[in-house]
Amino acid sequence: MATRTNNPPKPHLGFGTRVRKSPYFESTLKWGCKEYTTYNHMYFPVYYNTPEDDYWSLVNDVTLWDVAVERQVEITGPDATKFTQILTPRNLSDCEVTQCKYVLNTNYDGGILSDPILLRLAENHWWYSISDSDLLLWAMGVAGKGKYDIKLVEPDVSPLQVQGPKSRNVIVDLFGSWINDLQYYWCKETDLDGIPLVVSRTGWSGEIGYEVYLRDEKRGADLYEKIMAAGEPYKIAPTGPSQIRRVEAGIFSY
Amino acid sequence: MATRTNNPPKPHLGFGTRVRKSPYFESTLKWGCKEYTTYNHMYFPVYYNTPEDDYWSLVNDVTLWDVAVERQVEITGPDATKFTQILTPRNLSDCEVTQCKYVLNTNYDGGILSDPILLRLAENHWWYSISDSDLLLWAMGVAGKGKYDIKLVEPDVSPLQVQGPKSRNVIVDLFGSWINDLQYYWCKETDLDGIPLVVSRTGWSGEIGYEVYLRDEKRGADLYEKIMAAGEPYKIAPTGPSQIRRVEAGIFSY
Repeated sequence: MATRTNNPPKPHLGFGTRVRKSPYFESTLKWGCKEYTTYNHMYFPVYYNTPEDDYWSLVNDVTLWDVAVERQVEITGPDATKFTQILTPRNLSDCEVTQCKYVLNTNYDGGILSDPILLRLAENHWWYSISDSDLLLWAMGVAGKGKYDIKLVEPDVSPLQVQGPKSRNVIVDLFGSWINDLQYYWCKETDLDGIPLVVSRTGWSGEIGYEVYLRDEKRGADLYEKIMAAGEPYKIAPTGPSQIRRVEAGIFSY
Repeated sequence: MATRTNNPPKPHLGFGTRVRKSPYFESTLKWGCKEYTTYNHMYFPVYYNTPEDDYWSLVNDVTLWDVAVERQVEITGPDATKFTQILTPRNLSDCEVTQCKYVLNTNYDGGILSDPILLRLAENHWWYSISDSDLLLWAMGVAGKGKYDIKLVEPDVSPLQVQGPKSRNVIVDLFGSWINDLQYYWCKETDLDGIPLVVSRTGWSGEIGYEVYLRDEKRGADLYEKIMAAGEPYKIAPTGPSQIRRVEAGIFSY
């Protein structure tokens, strides 16, 4: 009869070259990430201290998440807006430049392929900030060969999330007081000491929060350390996305 | 200055519900898998003893790999053959029923999306046995809405590989002497004590080998144990795919 021991051997995660590393990967190791999973063919930090401690940092203070695994499907070109609309049943006609929308991507049967945040950076410049699926493959298939005048790529963009009640203090200290005017589900192109970024007032936490989209993977460690330094007075903690807070907030997890 | 210790904390893999488990997952734990990675949104066993020991089992004896992560893109229906050809630049006009082909799936720019084994089970019944990509999303996008009279799904199919110089002995003992007539890159529908299967003479090892495609996920542990039992006289060892042997054999790794 098969028996279970109280201490089954704990299999571990192999770090190899087939799974991609985020531009913040070395930073997450340095700051003590204890568990990873994978997402969009990349390593994804899960927790640092304990899931419970990480939760309390999120609800009391401020947390920094490496969510570079949220890859972008970028659509540019004269037909960009028309094609972006084809990929989602949500009406985008009222989506203004620098506005964001939470949308679903569905197949022809209504099955959900991804539930991204959609960012409109310019008249004909859109990012689907995707969940765990090769949405770019679907988009390429739908686009066909030359049917639309678009460019469709995964650009060099790697988000971080800064989430928690003190996140606004950290982001204002880093970027300035204009952040106070950034409304929920809007974004702005900016930079931090020359690091090219987009900042949006979005997140997956149920708390106030921001996403910082790095546009130069070589600057990952710089950006990570700048945010950690700015967050120190507010007891910032590196964490993964909190499943506890997510369930509390009634946010879906695909 | 940052320093490295000789014993950096080893982050581990979190087993959760977001990453899928193979029908053989419990068997791989029971037989001592020490490291997993992920592939096609599933846990994928990497090695059991050591990568070197696993290599010697492969080149001297016979090994059993859980490659249920090789998901199938199944195409059936009146336009199945026409549509299957659209997804690959390789000419399929000479692919007979029960024959297999190693093919590439490419996008409109010639970029490689997957490098599957293609199996033709019947006149209008094909499986792309894919590498690590959501190829089904691409195929659905290409198929469009009602342009082809096909059914396009990921069926309940979970492959194992039995690889190594003594693999033929094991497979003949399990299935009978007709296996000796199964040519390289051909397959056959069969069963093992009522477990529905397809057996092909293919693999990723550079050694003689077979793939056993389970068609009922509830029978995973049954099948795994039957193969281990049949392999015992031949010193069968559960292993992951051998990167060492793969490099020796000049097999690509996408």
